[in-house]
Amino acid sequence: MKYGIVVFPSKTLQDLANSYRKRYDPHYALIPPHLTLQEAFETDIDADKLTNIISEIAKKYEPFQLEVHKVSSFQPINNTIYFKVKMNDVLQNLHEDFQQQLPCEESKHPFVPHVTIAQKLSNDEHSDVYGSLRMLGVEHSEVVDRFHLVYQLENGSWTVYETFRLGKD
Amino acid sequence: MKYGIVVFPSKTLQDLANSYRKRYDPHYALIPPHLTLQEAFETDIDADKLTNIISEIAKKYEPFQLEVHKVSSFQPINNTIYFKVKMNDVLQNLHEDFQQQLPCEESKHPFVPHVTIAQKLSNDEHSDVYGSLRMLGVEHSEVVDRFHLVYQLENGSWTVYETFRLGKD
Repeated sequence: MKYGIVVFPSKTLQDLANSYRKRYDPHYALIPPHLTLQEAFETDIDADKLTNIISEIAKKYEPFQLEVHKVSSFQPINNTIYFKVKMNDVLQNLHEDFQQQLPCEESKHPFVPHVTIAQKLSNDEHSDVYGSLRMLGVEHSEVVDRFHLVYQLENGSWTVYETFRLGKD
Repeated sequence: MKYGIVVFPSKTLQDLANSYRKRYDPHYALIPPHLTLQEAFETDIDADKLTNIISEIAKKYEPFQLEVHKVSSFQPINNTIYFKVKMNDVLQNLHEDFQQQLPCEESKHPFVPHVTIAQKLSNDEHSDVYGSLRMLGVEHSEVVDRFHLVYQLENGSWTVYETFRLGKD
């Protein structure tokens, strides 16, 4: 199965992200707005074993402040536009622990925490949309105390398997 | 916020349900295939308080066998076609506990556990689709050991807030 690990932020931030995703993100219907902690990885190891590994990791860290201060873009790597999430120790350490302890490939790119609001745009669309969203800006802060192990269905959509609470035994 | 409580069955059953939902269920993109344990309810009580109530309920029951032996329809009440899930004590008791202990309205209909595969069909469509799906049939059995508290976003889609394990402290 193909798994991933994500944070679903508050309804407020998800609704804001969806107001853009609806028009600009072809993955709009596949998963709610999210911050990816561990990119999709394929493994035969069953979900319960993954859950055990991830639970031990989740216990080590406390809830953290998720802060969004700007709209950014991955261009020229790709045309994804996103809410840039300020890096912090919990995000960095969670990502590193997953990379070391899960049966996943090494990330090709440095970890840039973000919530995608537009992707798969043409270059012209990207420049229009990024121009206006960057001007609009975003200012948001909230506490994140949980994240989820998700798996992908055949149609490309994602289902939650388990929820992990930060700092809980 | 508007909340609901659902079981997401195995990937196998979800993929099968989606093969029909894709064509016949306008809610296809809003939530993965699921068995509703508690219909949507609106409350100002926060998600963490609901989580506490639901955790206490989840502890009381053990994982159960989810059995699907036929395709059925709610006609003449509505044109929803579904995988009929065999009733059992855990399903019945969970539903009753939620009805009694959560700030939700009393159900208008008796609780019929099911996984929807088609809805909002015209009468003609219903009779065509139901005719062929009923002939096709379904036979499936699996263990369910978890369920989820979900909440609805402004676009009508659902996000998982918490996962509850049956029979765990």
